[in-house]
Amino acid sequence: MTRMSTIFSKIISKDVPADIVYEDDIVLAFLDIHPIQPGHTLVIPKAPSENGIACDPDTLGHIMKIAQQIAKAQTSVLGCDGVNFFMNNGAAAGQEVFHTHLHVIPRFTDDNTFEKPLRGEYESGEATSLTASLAASLES
Amino acid sequence: MTRMSTIFSKIISKDVPADIVYEDDIVLAFLDIHPIQPGHTLVIPKAPSENGIACDPDTLGHIMKIAQQIAKAQTSVLGCDGVNFFMNNGAAAGQEVFHTHLHVIPRFTDDNTFEKPLRGEYESGEATSLTASLAASLES
Repeated sequence: MTRMSTIFSKIISKDVPADIVYEDDIVLAFLDIHPIQPGHTLVIPKAPSENGIACDPDTLGHIMKIAQQIAKAQTSVLGCDGVNFFMNNGAAAGQEVFHTHLHVIPRFTDDNTFEKPLRGEYESGEATSLTASLAASLES
Repeated sequence: MTRMSTIFSKIISKDVPADIVYEDDIVLAFLDIHPIQPGHTLVIPKAPSENGIACDPDTLGHIMKIAQQIAKAQTSVLGCDGVNFFMNNGAAAGQEVFHTHLHVIPRFTDDNTFEKPLRGEYESGEATSLTASLAASLES
């Protein structure tokens, strides 16, 4: 099967910069540049797969474990009240980049995130600072 | 930590019936009784944990692997075009039953599922038939 290269391939190869929260041999986690909430993080496998249906199962399990660690870091750093994990598999499910990715989204009571979904932008320096805090929390 | 018993505990103990799609030593998967789409399945750990932040990490990884198998079965049985995985952790994130659960939701092109979310009901016999088909697909 031919796999198309996506923007995520370039983030993995470091040809495109990203605010990297966590990295190991199997996955990379970085801030979504259009966060639904500040701290919204994507966890992706380094080996390309189109989505979570096609992804290697052990890799998929590892993605979820890292998502849990990120949720704990978000809770610690941001003081959020809850966290959504979601993965859209296929265009019909809302997938936009065709490289497997799990969204990890900090939530606050009554934030109405999914009632009025916004694709935000970070202020200058905000993403860098937040990334450093999340990465430090993950290491501790 | 004291863990509250939920309706899911009664489904695990078989004191409350459910349309069980898959079962092993670690997880149970069954149809959501109020499906967002027909075939909407929940994957839960047998050991109670409040949500995916508190859940045992290996168990969480296994839940995701089983979700992938269910997504493949949904695609085969229902002919869906995509599948959403989502897990709401905490009331602020939309969690309603405080026992870890991953939603596996079949999606069709232009179904507008999340634009007008509906909590459906199955017709008599529909869930039983669908469960049998999904379970058979998982075994094959």
